[in-house]
Amino acid sequence: MNRSDTIAEAAITLLAERGMRGLTHRAVDEAAGLPPGATSNVARTRAALLELTLSRLTVLERQAFAGTLDAEGGDFADRIAATLVIQLNDRRRTLARYELALEATRRPELREIYDRAGGQFRDPAVAMLTALGSPDPVRHGRMIVAYGEGVMFDAIAGAGQTPSHAELREGVRDLLRGMLAQQTSR
Amino acid sequence: MNRSDTIAEAAITLLAERGMRGLTHRAVDEAAGLPPGATSNVARTRAALLELTLSRLTVLERQAFAGTLDAEGGDFADRIAATLVIQLNDRRRTLARYELALEATRRPELREIYDRAGGQFRDPAVAMLTALGSPDPVRHGRMIVAYGEGVMFDAIAGAGQTPSHAELREGVRDLLRGMLAQQTSR
Repeated sequence: MNRSDTIAEAAITLLAERGMRGLTHRAVDEAAGLPPGATSNVARTRAALLELTLSRLTVLERQAFAGTLDAEGGDFADRIAATLVIQLNDRRRTLARYELALEATRRPELREIYDRAGGQFRDPAVAMLTALGSPDPVRHGRMIVAYGEGVMFDAIAGAGQTPSHAELREGVRDLLRGMLAQQTSR
Repeated sequence: MNRSDTIAEAAITLLAERGMRGLTHRAVDEAAGLPPGATSNVARTRAALLELTLSRLTVLERQAFAGTLDAEGGDFADRIAATLVIQLNDRRRTLARYELALEATRRPELREIYDRAGGQFRDPAVAMLTALGSPDPVRHGRMIVAYGEGVMFDAIAGAGQTPSHAELREGVRDLLRGMLAQQTSR
């Protein structure tokens, strides 16, 4: 891992453990085991440190999902459930992402990186729904992503429980059934 | 409004505008137009200030939803959509709640208040699904809440768009259709 990745990894851990208030250049130096000033040399401003951290997070998420979201064929509900399980199991990464999402409401430069990264979930979801014959794949793709986001937020930061892989698959199947059923079937 | 409500309201605004880092006793004094030390007199520690703020938020949310979630009869999908629209329109309150949700991952005393407040959405959702004849109302109630949470998070802090009332109602209808359909219908 090069120095800027080391710094970004320490920042992700700090965000998860201590929140936005716990993230300082000095705390990153310490957490990364680097000499004082090392983080400032790589990312001089707070904005630069946050951008570096979010960019690293985006790379990590892309790697984590390469085996599920981008896979061809198979059971869609099972693949979506598997993607959610990966997120739920990586509490550190997911909490750091939520911290950065909230910070992005106040920093347009972060917003741009965050939203671009969001495309990596949204585009495959729309493609899946199109392949399944959804009558409204863009809206339905958004629904699947929103459902997944809510399950994760509830389990990791909210008042919800952590669902099992089987429960998630069942939930996504319910969702798909409703989206793909004829409007007259109810 | 009594002094502690005034303080909690200023804290909610600060959380939404500046995040957890922007919330200090001094900043609350200033934002509330109170003399220095006023916030400390009401909530001496940071933990006490956070608890006061989350408790106020819970009261505000209960008031906001009294007309929709607790209503009798009517179109369930429309009522759930209306509840989500209320949340989406109150960006300040919803952002502050997300800040407090993340902080609750690090403070058990906040977790307890947050989770208790979560019951005010979860219990009506399970009751609705039971009334509609869901074969699995607890799981389905959780799904509806997760979907709503995800739509809000995506629209307010994430990479998603803000859906219209009509789109939300359509989405909840899709969800309910899938939950209530016979398992063999797909």
